[in-house]
Amino acid sequence: MNYKLTIQYDGTDFHGWQMQGELRTVQGELTRALSLIDGRDVIVHGSGRTDAGVHAEGQVASVHLAKQITPEKLRAAINGNTEKDVRVIEAIIVDDEFHARYSALEKTYVYRVVNAPIISPFLLRYAHHEARALDLRRMHSAAALFPDEHDWTAFSSSQSDSETRQRTITSVTVSEHIDERARARVIEIKVSAEGFLRYMVRSIAGTLLAVGRGEMDEQLVAQAIDGGDRSLVAATAPACGLTLLSVRYSN
Amino acid sequence: MNYKLTIQYDGTDFHGWQMQGELRTVQGELTRALSLIDGRDVIVHGSGRTDAGVHAEGQVASVHLAKQITPEKLRAAINGNTEKDVRVIEAIIVDDEFHARYSALEKTYVYRVVNAPIISPFLLRYAHHEARALDLRRMHSAAALFPDEHDWTAFSSSQSDSETRQRTITSVTVSEHIDERARARVIEIKVSAEGFLRYMVRSIAGTLLAVGRGEMDEQLVAQAIDGGDRSLVAATAPACGLTLLSVRYSN
Repeated sequence: MNYKLTIQYDGTDFHGWQMQGELRTVQGELTRALSLIDGRDVIVHGSGRTDAGVHAEGQVASVHLAKQITPEKLRAAINGNTEKDVRVIEAIIVDDEFHARYSALEKTYVYRVVNAPIISPFLLRYAHHEARALDLRRMHSAAALFPDEHDWTAFSSSQSDSETRQRTITSVTVSEHIDERARARVIEIKVSAEGFLRYMVRSIAGTLLAVGRGEMDEQLVAQAIDGGDRSLVAATAPACGLTLLSVRYSN
Repeated sequence: MNYKLTIQYDGTDFHGWQMQGELRTVQGELTRALSLIDGRDVIVHGSGRTDAGVHAEGQVASVHLAKQITPEKLRAAINGNTEKDVRVIEAIIVDDEFHARYSALEKTYVYRVVNAPIISPFLLRYAHHEARALDLRRMHSAAALFPDEHDWTAFSSSQSDSETRQRTITSVTVSEHIDERARARVIEIKVSAEGFLRYMVRSIAGTLLAVGRGEMDEQLVAQAIDGGDRSLVAATAPACGLTLLSVRYSN
């Protein structure tokens, strides 16, 4: 049976998604729990890696199990065998061909920024803090430059091991709301793409923050996108602000 | 100068508000920071104690300082000398007679419950988890029994060291909303009173949860309130679900 799992995790205490020896990773935790449940070593495929400290509200994984188990029971069994900072929120049975990574059509990330003199203890783990006032209108205009098919080398890590750096960004939006609990303005940068390179969302977020602070203008952003010059791109924004929101599949 | 401080804290890693020797407490952290700033030992008065694990979105403290310092600078100096799980979100200068505890007219707490099969990692620190379906209508009716001036001994700790157990509850409400991030139903029990005994909100919350699960009925709740019989009151709900929302003063 092939299962599709939708997973939430607080990335604070994980060394990211991908298994790395003895380090605590989300894929490692899930692989351990699922191998225990299935009574043999299983392979858990994620829709993609998330870096250390990055969160997920809707990561998707797929796994083939030899055992016949209802999705409800599987969900409970995994959650019973993992720490509470990772939770399977949904499990369903899918076609044999479904693969969390290869079947994915689009992924959406959100980058959250508290734009206030103080960051509340309640947002500290889940948002980046920017005390300087951000100009949302400038950020809106710059965000509109991103949606396109492009070589995004300038907005990724030099260690990125992808063979091609060509990716299609489908949408970049900037919005704001008041978080009542934290009593502060929160800015959300949402980025959807058919695929991402390493550090790509955090590079885009870092660049839009530089635009919001008035340190970069639209023209420079356009130049960075077109020319692919990494030296023009602002610093990668910190991991804690980033959350994988959802992964879209054809069905 | 007398200063009024509005404070937020994530109670997870604190042994409550009140100073206790070497244990990490909120009053202890603030006292250490303020004594450093004022160059002498100062006394920080809180509006009231919160227990270990209890959070605050709007705790209030007052402190007299010998040093003349603007409220803005004071706020920054305290936040610069404390860990980030406690933040002074506002500092103002107040009349010499203002006292965070004795001047308080009313305090409001919220008790948060995730009522879903799974608790999201993002609510784990800030809400109690109840997997069994809660009947909100029953909880509403029972909540209406509480507002009154009463001896609340049955709804408090036996260790409570208050001389009188008479307190006036001004409001108890039960509401629900969907937390989009956690993708789950969250129930909020809000309790306002002119004063609280130890464990009082958590006893009321525990009782309303028992009503919601169908384990207690309205009549039994009325009997517990009127008769003051602790054996009729349901178990005290866990600390992590409780947050001090606000403290009201005459101005």
